[in-house]
Amino acid sequence: MATAHVFIATSLDGYIARLDGDIDWLLQRDDQTEDHGYSDFIADKDVIVMGRGSYEKVLTFDTWFYDRPVVVLSEQLADSPVPEALKGKLRFSNLAPGDVMEELARQGVRRVYVDGGQLVQSFLRDGLVANMVITTVPVLIGSGRPLFGALGQDIELKLVSSRCFPSGLVQSTYRRVP
Amino acid sequence: MATAHVFIATSLDGYIARLDGDIDWLLQRDDQTEDHGYSDFIADKDVIVMGRGSYEKVLTFDTWFYDRPVVVLSEQLADSPVPEALKGKLRFSNLAPGDVMEELARQGVRRVYVDGGQLVQSFLRDGLVANMVITTVPVLIGSGRPLFGALGQDIELKLVSSRCFPSGLVQSTYRRVP
Repeated sequence: MATAHVFIATSLDGYIARLDGDIDWLLQRDDQTEDHGYSDFIADKDVIVMGRGSYEKVLTFDTWFYDRPVVVLSEQLADSPVPEALKGKLRFSNLAPGDVMEELARQGVRRVYVDGGQLVQSFLRDGLVANMVITTVPVLIGSGRPLFGALGQDIELKLVSSRCFPSGLVQSTYRRVP
Repeated sequence: MATAHVFIATSLDGYIARLDGDIDWLLQRDDQTEDHGYSDFIADKDVIVMGRGSYEKVLTFDTWFYDRPVVVLSEQLADSPVPEALKGKLRFSNLAPGDVMEELARQGVRRVYVDGGQLVQSFLRDGLVANMVITTVPVLIGSGRPLFGALGQDIELKLVSSRCFPSGLVQSTYRRVP
């Protein structure tokens, strides 16, 4: 089986982006001299799965900074052609979280980085997330796209570690209690 | 002037209680052998201000465990008599957050512990919160009464300190950047 892993930043009030997708509040507070552990995190991941929201955000950046195969889960995009510049780097899929994980497992994938609020919520609801690295940014933005959402039942977590940075970020790693 | 201070626990998904006020998910994870710092926090507070939700929750406990004067801010309760057993321990008020802080300051109060989600949100919106100790419990409960709410503008915070406990609680202290 493949396992899903989350590495995501959130405002203290639990938003990963403003309602219009804006993450300036995050980028402004991202101290580039600090190593927040993304390289370590991604080192043992085989594939990145993201939702349409994250994909469209990433498209607005100048560079495609993923060095892993990317699967964009989106019913809306599933029948679209992949942009020429991104061929070989990503594919679209309209599979459900569990089905895409099974498909990836059949292809030999073991560890999947799941990015984006809606997708993290779906993967959590379906019991597919093995652990989460959550970085809390010291700001309240009042509204936005929430990291977490409704659940069928409580999800019990175990704190693996927690650290903070001079910039004020608090980064906690949780794993799901089976 | 008097300043307001928050000391509160929240699920990882940002709820201080379930929709019906239930906090069993919190009490189950409250390791009594750990010192989470409440005594240190309350030591220099003069008065506790809480909302009706918190008051009604506290009433369901066997003992009244506050050793500071309590003000319950509630339009609904403002004209009610204080229960006989609690006379001298609390009073009801229907003042707005800023007005009750001014009233308390005139009475010589300097530091106020503000408790309860709705009230914390009001005090934050009105710029009255000087700092917050937020203890994050390693569980996702999916829905409930949120700690934070809508804001007129971003609230910039500075991380003062962060620590974690063997039980998995992560406790971070933030102060408001003026």
